Amino acid sequence: MIQARMEQLGKKAKEAARSLMLASTDQKNQALHQMAEALIAQSEDILQANQIDMEEGKHKGLSGTLLDRLMLSRKRIEEMSEGLLAVAALPDPVGEVVEMYRRPNGLEVGRIRVPLGVVGIIYEARPNVTADAAGLCLKTGNAIILRGGSEAFNSNQAIARVLAEAATAAGIHEGAVQLVDTTDREAANLLMRMNRYVDVLIPRGGAGLIQTVVNNATVPVIETGVGNCHTYVDEDADLDMALEIAINAKCQRPSVCNAMESLLVHESVASEFLPRLAEAMRERKVELRGCERFREIDPGVKPAVESDWETEFLDFILAVKVVKNLDEAMDHINRYGTGHSEAIVTRSYERARSFMAGVDAAAVFVNASTRFTDGFQFGLGAEIGISTQKLHARGPMGLKELTSTKYIIYGNGQIRK
Amino acid sequence: MIQARMEQLGKKAKEAARSLMLASTDQKNQALHQMAEALIAQSEDILQANQIDMEEGKHKGLSGTLLDRLMLSRKRIEEMSEGLLAVAALPDPVGEVVEMYRRPNGLEVGRIRVPLGVVGIIYEARPNVTADAAGLCLKTGNAIILRGGSEAFNSNQAIARVLAEAATAAGIHEGAVQLVDTTDREAANLLMRMNRYVDVLIPRGGAGLIQTVVNNATVPVIETGVGNCHTYVDEDADLDMALEIAINAKCQRPSVCNAMESLLVHESVASEFLPRLAEAMRERKVELRGCERFREIDPGVKPAVESDWETEFLDFILAVKVVKNLDEAMDHINRYGTGHSEAIVTRSYERARSFMAGVDAAAVFVNASTRFTDGFQFGLGAEIGISTQKLHARGPMGLKELTSTKYIIYGNGQIRK
Repeated sequence: MIQARMEQLGKKAKEAARSLMLASTDQKNQALHQMAEALIAQSEDILQANQIDMEEGKHKGLSGTLLDRLMLSRKRIEEMSEGLLAVAALPDPVGEVVEMYRRPNGLEVGRIRVPLGVVGIIYEARPNVTADAAGLCLKTGNAIILRGGSEAFNSNQAIARVLAEAATAAGIHEGAVQLVDTTDREAANLLMRMNRYVDVLIPRGGAGLIQTVVNNATVPVIETGVGNCHTYVDEDADLDMALEIAINAKCQRPSVCNAMESLLVHESVASEFLPRLAEAMRERKVELRGCERFREIDPGVKPAVESDWETEFLDFILAVKVVKNLDEAMDHINRYGTGHSEAIVTRSYERARSFMAGVDAAAVFVNASTRFTDGFQFGLGAEIGISTQKLHARGPMGLKELTSTKYIIYGNGQIRK
Repeated sequence: MIQARMEQLGKKAKEAARSLMLASTDQKNQALHQMAEALIAQSEDILQANQIDMEEGKHKGLSGTLLDRLMLSRKRIEEMSEGLLAVAALPDPVGEVVEMYRRPNGLEVGRIRVPLGVVGIIYEARPNVTADAAGLCLKTGNAIILRGGSEAFNSNQAIARVLAEAATAAGIHEGAVQLVDTTDREAANLLMRMNRYVDVLIPRGGAGLIQTVVNNATVPVIETGVGNCHTYVDEDADLDMALEIAINAKCQRPSVCNAMESLLVHESVASEFLPRLAEAMRERKVELRGCERFREIDPGVKPAVESDWETEFLDFILAVKVVKNLDEAMDHINRYGTGHSEAIVTRSYERARSFMAGVDAAAVFVNASTRFTDGFQFGLGAEIGISTQKLHARGPMGLKELTSTKYIIYGNGQIRK
């Protein structure tokens, strides 16, 4: 029975995608505006649904952080609504002719940006993802199938219903915005293998969720998010700058994927830099876990174990290692990093270039905080996630990353010899 | 034991990829030249290995077509060698800065083209794929793990050994070109799930092979090849042009993915066009399978059954259907097509535009043969396959499609507020 429901969902999404592919930018923007208005107009219903989730969450003993993520307020609904308006205001990537050239036989060959088709989003916790993802997909002419976490089930259902109704009322084909209306795990498993209907899956959530999707999906997946990010303080670093960057990368918002988890420092500046680092971090209640060299300088530091180099703490914890040189730093990063965001602080032209070339990650920084890896900070105007894989999209994904291209070829009777 | 060998292979490939990422274009081209020379210098060894495969193939009763694909000659080895030189002569996409801009806070944000890393190729039959794929990957700074079909095992081994030795002699890190040295299926299964070491898998072969890879791989896959391609002859078509295009698309090389499998024709020109089509196709020994309307015009035509609309014949067989209008043609194509190559023949500006926009395929043609969907014909200078999926690459894939990008960010101490 779930199978039949998912099949139905997929079919509707595919039909909607065929229609959305042809929708004009004006039509799509009009729908986004109506969706934004509907969220405000029906915020009472959404808040009531959220109340049910919050009570169940408390009953189940969800942590304070999780409950805070789950909670909706009039203000948060307004933010979702404003998010949809902001997406409406962005340029539409669909229809852009990426290139066009003439071949010797007179054929004109080009590539035009088109929607991906049907996008599946499997996500946890925050109900605002429902509105954000639906808005980005609609803007790019994609039908969306949302599969949220069970703890936000009622909130997501209410939001998706409001959005879907508003989109349909604005003349968008029914099925453009759909939410899987069961918390049964089998539904998610089916969604991951619906290659006939779904063009891409984007999991958004913790490492466990992402791993499950990667392991089980036959639909192409864009891996997002896990960030074990490093900052390397070079022997030629401006140590004041290094300290500011380290504090920002670790402490400004430690719970997110672009926060720093490990700091590496060149041995020749370790004894000058590390005491300053230790003081600054302790002031900010950051637990330090250090290599032997760091502990010789500061015996109060907890010893780092192997797993500390591998861990995305997402917390006020920092692993610190003294390295012999740039090569050791890059080896460490390429070995333990997750290919998300990596930074060097240096005044050396040569080593800045070496680090840029030699570190294999979605975003490589010279003299800046890794916290900038973000669609808005990079000026994309939006973000559907941060890809840590190399296919299709790498780093923050904006509207363009929700599109594909197709070859368009204009001839006047050419045949192949 | 196979597990340990594959692990070893993956590790070596990853190490080689780290090194290749930093190789200069000169170094890579030098290696390609030496690889090209080595194929010629050691062609005797390759031919001997091929002889073993040919004898085993005959013994196993492989078809004449398969044996022909398998067979190597001095001329075919020369072609492989020339292919490597041609790839050396192409511009290197790695290092291209795709975009670069300054943010309001002074950060300079750009994207640079980088290798994918480790590319796995799982392929059947033709041993020339071994050299072609190795050349394209080396040019783009990727390490390659090749897994060929068992029938070409000895030939592939010989070619891969010659190429790997020549690359190493030219100073390329060992492990840049590797072939899985067993025909055990378990090795392929392991390769498909080696996410730690392999960045992308490209299956090249029949629908069965591709489906197996899609269903079993956890490594990101680029689907290639299956082409159920259509030509639609519109009511406003130049019928002479339509006939020439149809003959070319069907007959010039029916065994390949961009050949036409079904022809759709508008009812108002059916009685004029179809007799001419039938005559031309019969002259070329093409078996026709038609809808009822076609059979009323020409009772000698075999009736088409549902499965004929779905089939990639790869043979001298053509399914033909009369349609009421453009919408019916597009519905048919979007339903039965595999999203490869689709053509309309028309003089109507309006319908040419509608077809371009409404058909969801990697390549959409107006007034030209679908046979042009090809990396060389499109001017890419090379081809690693034709993607029929929408992620990362769609249509013919050249050197650029074997690269990813990474964000590069230059700052002077920026931190996030």
